[in-house]
Formats: sequence, C-alpha cells, structure tokens
Amino acid sequence: MCQARVYGQREGHEQLIMEDVALIEVDGDVCTMATLFGEEKRVKGRIVRIDLLKHRVVLEEVQDV
Amino acid sequence: MCQARVYGQREGHEQLIMEDVALIEVDGDVCTMATLFGEEKRVKGRIVRIDLLKHRVVLEEVQDV
Repeated sequence: MCQARVYGQREGHEQLIMEDVALIEVDGDVCTMATLFGEEKRVKGRIVRIDLLKHRVVLEEVQDV
Repeated sequence: MCQARVYGQREGHEQLIMEDVALIEVDGDVCTMATLFGEEKRVKGRIVRIDLLKHRVVLEEVQDV
C-alpha cells in the first residue's frame, strides 16, 4: 500500500503529524489529510517534499501571524 | 511501487507532466520532480492534491506575471 506518513517541519526539526495518509488536499495554506478510515486532520502548512519511495510527505508549518 | 504521475491543472483541465515520479521537492513556486532513473523536471506550480492510492499528484500551474 502506498499510504504515507506526514511530517511537520519547523526550525529544522521534523515531527510526525499523521500516519496512513491516503489523500492530501491543499487549499491555500491549509492541508487536509485523510486516511482510508475517514480520519481527517487539518494543518496550516505548505508541502515542501514528497518522497514516494519512503512514503513520506513533509510540510513546512506556517506560523500564525 | 509507489511512484506517481504528476498532472498540471490549468483552468480546470489536467495534463500529464511526468510519470514514474519518485521525489518532488518544492522551493517557493518551483516544483522539482525526479524519477529513479535520474530524469528531472522543473515546473512552476503549487501542489494542490496528493492521492496516494491513485498514485497521482496534481499541481496548479502558476502563471508568469
């Protein structure tokens, strides 16, 4: 299966946000992630890297002003 | 294998940009895609959707001003 782990990057550190992500939709600065089981998570961030072999997506977290 | 097809979206239409993409890196408005065989392509665009089950990434093409 090709689901991915999504990590948030802030000041060089990466932190796991969500596992088993099947779909990511981006609307402006907001990324909505969903698993096959209907779990959903929204994060303010921009996608900076998608590594399809490692099943790994990295978001750069957008700071609130 | 989990490589993906990358599509560009412009005015509602989607067009295949690259197949067998293993890695996408984003730097500002520029997305750099690479295959396992070292092929590389750069496109001005923002990632708007990653469908990991369909192995499909959609970029919204950024128009030059």
